[in-house]
Amino acid sequence: MTRVYNFSAGPSALPEAVLQQAQQEMLDWRGSGMSVMEMSHRGKQFSSIAAELEADLRDLMRIPENYRVLFLQGGASAQFSFIPQNILGLKTKACYVKTGAWSEKAIKDAQTYCETIVSANSESSHFTTIPDVASWVCDSQAAYLHYTSNETIHGVEFNTTPNSKGLPLVCDMSSNILSRPIDVNEFGLIYAGSQKNMGAAGVTLVIVRDDLLGQCLKTVPPVFNYTEQVKNQSMLNTPTTYSWYLMGLVLKWLQEQGGVTAIEQCNIVKSAKLYHAIDNSTLYRNPVEIVSRSRMNVPFILADDSLDKAFLTAAEMNGFNELKGHRSVGGMRASIYNAMPESGVDALISFMQEFERTH
Amino acid sequence: MTRVYNFSAGPSALPEAVLQQAQQEMLDWRGSGMSVMEMSHRGKQFSSIAAELEADLRDLMRIPENYRVLFLQGGASAQFSFIPQNILGLKTKACYVKTGAWSEKAIKDAQTYCETIVSANSESSHFTTIPDVASWVCDSQAAYLHYTSNETIHGVEFNTTPNSKGLPLVCDMSSNILSRPIDVNEFGLIYAGSQKNMGAAGVTLVIVRDDLLGQCLKTVPPVFNYTEQVKNQSMLNTPTTYSWYLMGLVLKWLQEQGGVTAIEQCNIVKSAKLYHAIDNSTLYRNPVEIVSRSRMNVPFILADDSLDKAFLTAAEMNGFNELKGHRSVGGMRASIYNAMPESGVDALISFMQEFERTH
Repeated sequence: MTRVYNFSAGPSALPEAVLQQAQQEMLDWRGSGMSVMEMSHRGKQFSSIAAELEADLRDLMRIPENYRVLFLQGGASAQFSFIPQNILGLKTKACYVKTGAWSEKAIKDAQTYCETIVSANSESSHFTTIPDVASWVCDSQAAYLHYTSNETIHGVEFNTTPNSKGLPLVCDMSSNILSRPIDVNEFGLIYAGSQKNMGAAGVTLVIVRDDLLGQCLKTVPPVFNYTEQVKNQSMLNTPTTYSWYLMGLVLKWLQEQGGVTAIEQCNIVKSAKLYHAIDNSTLYRNPVEIVSRSRMNVPFILADDSLDKAFLTAAEMNGFNELKGHRSVGGMRASIYNAMPESGVDALISFMQEFERTH
Repeated sequence: MTRVYNFSAGPSALPEAVLQQAQQEMLDWRGSGMSVMEMSHRGKQFSSIAAELEADLRDLMRIPENYRVLFLQGGASAQFSFIPQNILGLKTKACYVKTGAWSEKAIKDAQTYCETIVSANSESSHFTTIPDVASWVCDSQAAYLHYTSNETIHGVEFNTTPNSKGLPLVCDMSSNILSRPIDVNEFGLIYAGSQKNMGAAGVTLVIVRDDLLGQCLKTVPPVFNYTEQVKNQSMLNTPTTYSWYLMGLVLKWLQEQGGVTAIEQCNIVKSAKLYHAIDNSTLYRNPVEIVSRSRMNVPFILADDSLDKAFLTAAEMNGFNELKGHRSVGGMRASIYNAMPESGVDALISFMQEFERTH
């Protein structure tokens, strides 16, 4: 067995130790005589897995007592529609910051349910910047302010939590959750898909402040009604049990790495090395302004795009997978989430330098 | 490692061969150097898994060309809300057959979107019968007729496909799909959760006839709009990739067993043995009328319910798990889906007889 370095934007590489544990426990979880995926979600074994999952997440993110944690289905994209329906209440508008493809989708889907006010927009820079927070225009009558903390396609990331000017702050943290410390108290709602920094696909995390509950529109199916799911510990129907279990293993692994503060240091080092290599080459270039560069997704283009195919072929032959950029922007992209070891980034840099030398 | 006999109603036992293959491929799927759960859903490896999954399902169920196959998220319960929103079109009412707890929930959730006409109802028998189809009252102006082919809690099952009197027939097949042959041509829409006869939780199968597409309400999130998902091969957003893979392994296993016709024979033998043992005891009793008994879920009560706890404790000590009946009806329940081997049923019967002899 040879494992590759997998730079996929998501689903993405998992810690090898997590996969090994899942492998070892596949037919018999800790003497239960069952695989986790065979367990009733209401049984005592799975209940313990679920309780530990929430406790570990609360520990890692220091989630205050007045926030509920939900593990839903449907992906973060489904939340583009369910967030307004759950928390607009009697309001009719919401503010959105447009910083790339994902925030753009969130705005589009919300428009079915409310007026969307674009408080800031970096489209004119081709989404290579984060708009200066001082210039954001927020409507005090809006129900919330939504932003996307990291844009996987354009490779831009907020390096601080923006001031929401009194509105409940709602954040799609799908692609950088648990990669750096944040203060949950600054948010009304945080949501994220599981398939980047938290495990396999199949869980949609929603962390919501108590005061935003209790106002869901009745057109929302019960399994996507936050208030109903809070009452039912996210088990109004059968959840994606195996993905919950895998998320639990990833969180334990993260605790063993020293938690979010420690992993942030790794992420700073890994991304700095890769950007440094790109900036110091003549073949590769990253278009994002330095202060807005993502630590998670590093897009780069080749000075001569006729070399793209040769680059990707050579990369794959050398065990570097999924480096092709998103079809909407082209070029290359290396996604280096928590689970990507520094050795993977070092190896990629060596490969890129060797490719540059020979082409 | 000692594996138990797992009689859980869902998530439920999986074929041991499937778990072994998943275990073996966990860190490296067929030389890819990646776990399936690490793969981009748009990459060539996962695309091949997805294509084979659909092809195998079409083969096993003989799905005609004019039906689309969707692999969604959210569980069958979410479809209680999304089915009316997707296929009501300009109609304002739909017919439902009430045969137990699950069809009851389907009716309740649909009422948010349309008038529901209860075409037949077996509540007066405490859901121990299937209402005679000749007596069903269907409204010709209804958009469809919905029924639940097997009720997991009450243990009643349709033994033929009912005549829908000209309406598109919609069926929740969550708990008996692939357990017996059906003619897909008789249906407008079939849906089912994955966690009983098709693998791990996390996939919601929707098989829909072409002519029912194209009329989804715009309030439905894009990822639950059948027409949008048909256009995007169920990948409008990241699907639960690992659950798709596991479903694929289960379908291959089913093909190796001889397909649906062969597994039906096993299911007939297993359920007949268990009902025979119950009917021939003085301690155990099944309340369902004989022609409506489920082959999948066999509820039974003890003549003396003060023995319930002792029964469950002794069962678990002997490696028979999850036999407790649903909290809403009490007693016991043995769920014996496709993956439960005949030897498991034989062993359970021996245990039950021994318990009766000694109590």
